[in-house]
Amino acid sequence: MELGMIGLGRMGGNMAQRLLRGGHRVVAYDANGEAVAASQGQGASGAASLEEAVALLTPPRAVWLMLPHGPVTMDIIDRLTPLLAAGDVILDGGNANYKDTIGQAEKLAGYRIELMDVGTSGGVWGLTEGYSLMVGGKLETFRRLEPIFQTLAADKGYCYAGPAGAGHFVKMVHNGVEYALMQAYAEGFELMAAKTEFDLDLAAIAETWRHGSVVRSWLLDLAVAALEQDPGLEGLEAYVEDSGEGRWTVQESVELAVPTPTITLALQQRFRSRQEQPFGAKLLAALRNQFGGHGVRRSG
Amino acid sequence: MELGMIGLGRMGGNMAQRLLRGGHRVVAYDANGEAVAASQGQGASGAASLEEAVALLTPPRAVWLMLPHGPVTMDIIDRLTPLLAAGDVILDGGNANYKDTIGQAEKLAGYRIELMDVGTSGGVWGLTEGYSLMVGGKLETFRRLEPIFQTLAADKGYCYAGPAGAGHFVKMVHNGVEYALMQAYAEGFELMAAKTEFDLDLAAIAETWRHGSVVRSWLLDLAVAALEQDPGLEGLEAYVEDSGEGRWTVQESVELAVPTPTITLALQQRFRSRQEQPFGAKLLAALRNQFGGHGVRRSG
Repeated sequence: MELGMIGLGRMGGNMAQRLLRGGHRVVAYDANGEAVAASQGQGASGAASLEEAVALLTPPRAVWLMLPHGPVTMDIIDRLTPLLAAGDVILDGGNANYKDTIGQAEKLAGYRIELMDVGTSGGVWGLTEGYSLMVGGKLETFRRLEPIFQTLAADKGYCYAGPAGAGHFVKMVHNGVEYALMQAYAEGFELMAAKTEFDLDLAAIAETWRHGSVVRSWLLDLAVAALEQDPGLEGLEAYVEDSGEGRWTVQESVELAVPTPTITLALQQRFRSRQEQPFGAKLLAALRNQFGGHGVRRSG
Repeated sequence: MELGMIGLGRMGGNMAQRLLRGGHRVVAYDANGEAVAASQGQGASGAASLEEAVALLTPPRAVWLMLPHGPVTMDIIDRLTPLLAAGDVILDGGNANYKDTIGQAEKLAGYRIELMDVGTSGGVWGLTEGYSLMVGGKLETFRRLEPIFQTLAADKGYCYAGPAGAGHFVKMVHNGVEYALMQAYAEGFELMAAKTEFDLDLAAIAETWRHGSVVRSWLLDLAVAALEQDPGLEGLEAYVEDSGEGRWTVQESVELAVPTPTITLALQQRFRSRQEQPFGAKLLAALRNQFGGHGVRRSG
């Protein structure tokens, strides 16, 4: 088939490459001309502007956006809309909030342009292993564009999730689950690291768990790689960012009144990792001192 | 090599079979004569008593216990001790508390009998896929018995963890991590099930996540199997047991003062699943009613 790929970063560039290897025609555009040139070198038709990208595609067009969610994606959609025609499809492979996606889809429907949301997991490994794709939008459009999903995905790694928004919703929950899975391993390995009397070889233990154990997983594979490289993780600071979807999952659990205690705490632990001297801990120390005369550590 | 297998339940019976397939000689004993006969049918030397099992083994003997942890295992160790001789080894493949294991190892050392603790994961799939084994005890004994571990384990699925107790400690943490991993998926799927407007096909989504996504794991494989069999899990009650090691992991985190919030909450969620009308929730309702006149649901 034929697809426009807008955004040729770490994810988009690899996806364009995987599509080209799968025999599809790709029109590639990025604000960064070097990324366009790289894609062109892999066989894509490079475009120097959004206008050119659209002109190089045959209607009904399919344009895949692989961009940072929020303002960047929204801006490109706004600029694309007047360039496209009724029957064209925009696929948003980024991590948009599913509520924004539903709003965008409604807006675009006014122009008879369809928005499909494709929750995309796989990271830098997707190029070789294939991605996991959760697709929201019209079922008939999903069927029409299925050769694209099939090429991008790992074998059996894509599904139709539901109407517009469902793809990003499922991807949001996926990432919430990911936060809690990561935190589970983090706690277990921290506990083993603290048990100094056993002098445990964490990389060897993690490697053993990978084979035949109940906790084996792809995240554990990555833990082995990290622990083998730096057994005490001494090259890293204990500082963890979050990128939105964990927060949205927790917000959704509040809206639906569905308990998600470990996903919530996994997110909170990331917040905690970014604090050096939290005010709350200072207040606890102050209170213990007030009521019991317990010792405190004075700063400065 | 040669090994005595005491306890031919779901785990021990399969392990005896895997050892026999691997060309080892197995002396099999269980209080249940039918289990002994079944092992015998697979090529084991069946024993009608502990005494006979010990007599059928060549010194220095290696006797593997695959029994419920606690009193059952302790009783068998007490009964085995006078039957064994200096240089013999008892391997405890059950889920004993590592502190009890250290105590047992010290007691047996008085008789010059060694206790090795083998944390064993793999469940009913171990027979075909191999187990994951975390071995505590003397390094030289680990090396001597390595052909046994190699046959039982999945490829690369065993390691020397450290001195006596280290194997059961690592298995304890493994199970604590398992609790939190399971809870992570449980929360994610519950959130998706509650999002009725999208009418999500949870089995299809889980299957998609298995291929190329960051959250793929063996537990997710099992989730797919369960959801395909009964998409709404309508045949199950929301009642979850726990079997000790989650509790010990939380206790260990308290002793070491290492935070394990999600493992702890995963355990607490299991406790909650077994309560129908918790007193705490009643008290919350009563307090809201007291201070704000908020409505309550009267029982009976």
